[in-house]
Amino acid sequence: MDVQWAQDIVEKINWLAQFGKDSENGGVTRLVYSETWLEAQLALKKLFEDEGFHTEFDEVGNLFARLNGTEYTNETILTGSHIDTVKNGGYYDGQLGVIAGFFALKHLQQTYGQPVRNIEVVSMAEEEGSRFPYSMWGSKYIAGQAKQEDIKGIKDANGESFEEAMNKAGFGYKKNRENVRDDLKAFIELHIEQGNVLETEEIPIGIVQHIVGQRRFIVEVTGQANHAGTTPMGYRRDAMNAAARMIYGVNDLALSYGDPLVATVGEIQAQPGTVNVVSGKVIFSIDARHINEKELQDFTDEMTANLRTTASHIGVEIDIDMWMDEPPVPMDPAVVDIIKQQCDNQQLLYKLMHSGAGHDAQVFAQNIPTAMLFVPSRDGISHNPQEYTKPKDLVEGIKALTGAIYDLGYTKELSLN
Amino acid sequence: MDVQWAQDIVEKINWLAQFGKDSENGGVTRLVYSETWLEAQLALKKLFEDEGFHTEFDEVGNLFARLNGTEYTNETILTGSHIDTVKNGGYYDGQLGVIAGFFALKHLQQTYGQPVRNIEVVSMAEEEGSRFPYSMWGSKYIAGQAKQEDIKGIKDANGESFEEAMNKAGFGYKKNRENVRDDLKAFIELHIEQGNVLETEEIPIGIVQHIVGQRRFIVEVTGQANHAGTTPMGYRRDAMNAAARMIYGVNDLALSYGDPLVATVGEIQAQPGTVNVVSGKVIFSIDARHINEKELQDFTDEMTANLRTTASHIGVEIDIDMWMDEPPVPMDPAVVDIIKQQCDNQQLLYKLMHSGAGHDAQVFAQNIPTAMLFVPSRDGISHNPQEYTKPKDLVEGIKALTGAIYDLGYTKELSLN
Repeated sequence: MDVQWAQDIVEKINWLAQFGKDSENGGVTRLVYSETWLEAQLALKKLFEDEGFHTEFDEVGNLFARLNGTEYTNETILTGSHIDTVKNGGYYDGQLGVIAGFFALKHLQQTYGQPVRNIEVVSMAEEEGSRFPYSMWGSKYIAGQAKQEDIKGIKDANGESFEEAMNKAGFGYKKNRENVRDDLKAFIELHIEQGNVLETEEIPIGIVQHIVGQRRFIVEVTGQANHAGTTPMGYRRDAMNAAARMIYGVNDLALSYGDPLVATVGEIQAQPGTVNVVSGKVIFSIDARHINEKELQDFTDEMTANLRTTASHIGVEIDIDMWMDEPPVPMDPAVVDIIKQQCDNQQLLYKLMHSGAGHDAQVFAQNIPTAMLFVPSRDGISHNPQEYTKPKDLVEGIKALTGAIYDLGYTKELSLN
Repeated sequence: MDVQWAQDIVEKINWLAQFGKDSENGGVTRLVYSETWLEAQLALKKLFEDEGFHTEFDEVGNLFARLNGTEYTNETILTGSHIDTVKNGGYYDGQLGVIAGFFALKHLQQTYGQPVRNIEVVSMAEEEGSRFPYSMWGSKYIAGQAKQEDIKGIKDANGESFEEAMNKAGFGYKKNRENVRDDLKAFIELHIEQGNVLETEEIPIGIVQHIVGQRRFIVEVTGQANHAGTTPMGYRRDAMNAAARMIYGVNDLALSYGDPLVATVGEIQAQPGTVNVVSGKVIFSIDARHINEKELQDFTDEMTANLRTTASHIGVEIDIDMWMDEPPVPMDPAVVDIIKQQCDNQQLLYKLMHSGAGHDAQVFAQNIPTAMLFVPSRDGISHNPQEYTKPKDLVEGIKALTGAIYDLGYTKELSLN
């Protein structure tokens, strides 16, 4: 069966990628509410319907495909992910979770018939925030966490408003959803890891226990711009030299904290930014993540203290602005146990790990028992046409997902929160 | 006399600054061969003629004003500087040297009459390289170091060619000057320091002994772009972290060499340059200067070895491109001695120093005995509307210049090389 599944899965992934694929570089661009996005959602709708599943769009364009339960008809197990992409993205990020749901649903129906409670696959409208400055729109809407005023007035790069785009695609926000649908009993998302841990350790499945908290900072270092030739080293207040010391200090501190803490300086800008002028100002970003809120805070407290010490040492001014502070989100231990049990039963190798990236699962986890499964990303690459996961790993990940959904959908007693 | 001179000098500086002055921000923009540049050159011509000096443009637009000698009529002492500016520059850089020459010439004529050899003031066409990608055009032409082919095909930002612009201003390069004019016996340039050494040490006059050599590098550090959340610290090849270590290493090494070595990282660019992505590439500039060629080479050799060590330590690739290597230029010791002697005689406080910036004097120094005088720059600022030198310092600098020119122009025996 595995070989056939592998072929079928890869075929469906390639099929879905045709919607929005760039014929030049092979990347996929499928921004929410665009024509290619709508074509993809409608094609998925047909894909599920052709297998006999009931499908339904909600008012903002999340697509649900349903296998009805026989007994607990007001209880639903949900799986899926998003089908929007970044600009020039790959075939896997988000999309794989929907395809995985399709194979799980089809396999369960064919093998076991109707479950005791409903099983649904969701193809969410939006997660990436790559068209509008708002992310995880699909899951936030389902979970009752999105408000109409959040998207009022926001526009894409061409000046089209969120609401215009939604209306043009045939959807329309009518009223705020107050709460998550009360029939949802669990959510499991299968996603590519977007890192290189599983690949490096040669493990096909990651079972996520936590989604990291994130703190993001903009650090502005102000020294004095001076002529690079006529200002002796001892007379300088060089913002670049100060920033360099700060950046490696952030890195060293992160190393000293050890996994799972990560800290990254990804953006930097020097002013005036000229070869022969000592920098008067350097602005850089810091992104720090940890699965534990206290640890994350300890790290960033120590980090900002160190930044200030370095600044006063070198005689520059510093302004540190923390503009994002998202707490870590734990996955549901009971759902995690179900997945572990299924991996053990099926003799699938797995690693308990955390997600260093944000996902729709963190939105659902606020309201319902939620877990995540990872499959490896070749070279850790994501958001890029080079995204790739081996067919063998796709099959093993989908087997673990299918087993867990079987447990949740076909077992009468559901011992979740 | 000093108070009157101070007033007159400031008045002439302000007068010259009107040509190309921005009424909004007060900055001066006088790019070579522009209308404002031509107006300024013609106004200077009239200024000198009104005092009875003979004036003459050469074929590329350098303006010479002459006080004829009585005895050694085929020998000339030259002073002056350039009157082109950077975009939105100040009142002093370059221009001061021409105004200083005017006051020196006028004072010498009024006080001592005709010299034994000719004295000329030059208002050079171009030094900054701020319109065309070619700098020190005026002095290189006079010194026979500019070739017609050097400027063939080079254009300004609006697509106008160097030659078109020159022709439009009424000048035209006809044939290559093979050598410096053989009547030139010495050149002295008075300029603002463009650094903060004189100001900090409260000394009005700098006597330049060397113009530094410069080596400029582009360093390209290549690691691996990775997701900032999903890539543990130990799995990274972070080009930014590597670059940060390199940059502070360059700074530390420069400090350990001590004055007059300076090294500056002024430009930096990270790729992809996104808050949540580990940098795959960081490119930065290094500008290193020293008055001694061997010391400069020792420094840059050690620096590049250190950069490579850091790169291999962190596991990133490095490409180091030295795209500029200009040797240091010593000033003529005999002319320097004449200036020192004049300062001593006139009880003017001076500091023997080097120039960390390039100047027309370094071009002349290839061919004739040359020296430079500095006056302080407030806050070390240049290339900026905030350029300022106290009137008292202007007077003292011009007194030293006038004395040195007196010595060179009115003394029968000239003990120069």
